[in-house]
Amino acid sequence: MKKQTRRTFVASAVALGASASASAITTMETKDKKQLTHHVFFWLKNRDSKEDLTKLLEGLRTLEKIETIRKLHIGVPASTEKRDVVDNSYSASELMFFDDTAGQKIYQDHPIHQKFIENCSHLWEKVIVYDAIDV
Amino acid sequence: MKKQTRRTFVASAVALGASASASAITTMETKDKKQLTHHVFFWLKNRDSKEDLTKLLEGLRTLEKIETIRKLHIGVPASTEKRDVVDNSYSASELMFFDDTAGQKIYQDHPIHQKFIENCSHLWEKVIVYDAIDV
Repeated sequence: MKKQTRRTFVASAVALGASASASAITTMETKDKKQLTHHVFFWLKNRDSKEDLTKLLEGLRTLEKIETIRKLHIGVPASTEKRDVVDNSYSASELMFFDDTAGQKIYQDHPIHQKFIENCSHLWEKVIVYDAIDV
Repeated sequence: MKKQTRRTFVASAVALGASASASAITTMETKDKKQLTHHVFFWLKNRDSKEDLTKLLEGLRTLEKIETIRKLHIGVPASTEKRDVVDNSYSASELMFFDDTAGQKIYQDHPIHQKFIENCSHLWEKVIVYDAIDV
């Protein structure tokens, strides 16, 4: 947690009551806190078009400016062993972590994300999203 | 990179030639080095069985001892907005990072992973694996 954010959070928490704030801060500062994983797989319409893949990857890179994203991985299929259970047919993937569903919702509605969809959605024919919460 | 590993790597790299080793070490030490993402989704045979889910999650937790796993997230579907593109039908997921395909291969063949499959594979009816490499 950035210092400024924490200071703001502490101030808000103190306003809510001292005992509540103490436990909230402990939770917020836990190193291995539960995160929300948002993993999206894209299948391009033109699967063999390097140009379209480049456009999609460039679009995905714009997302990293969205402030609620804790970590962003943009990927393509890895050259791991081919097995029946492995789906390597997708063109590109975005994997991001959020602190919670509220952070993910801010991302969904964010103008940068909306702009990405506007600019790039004509490129893909299929998208699958998996949202997971750590247990 | 752990100190011991780096020392071994440096020794090997030096053996290969000083100029090659310098650039290789720079790449290896880059903070945001490219990682391999291994994300597996499991669908239980008995989807409503909390007992089977607990067994599966316990099995997944045994995997964290495998030394080539850089980070492990074990999750269940998050309560994000229901949308056509979101697949929240799975029962549990494992998300792990590796340094490279070699690290992932060691994991695949590792006795702990084999034991997990032996103990838990009767629980699931479907598995999908996505392997991605950072671009």
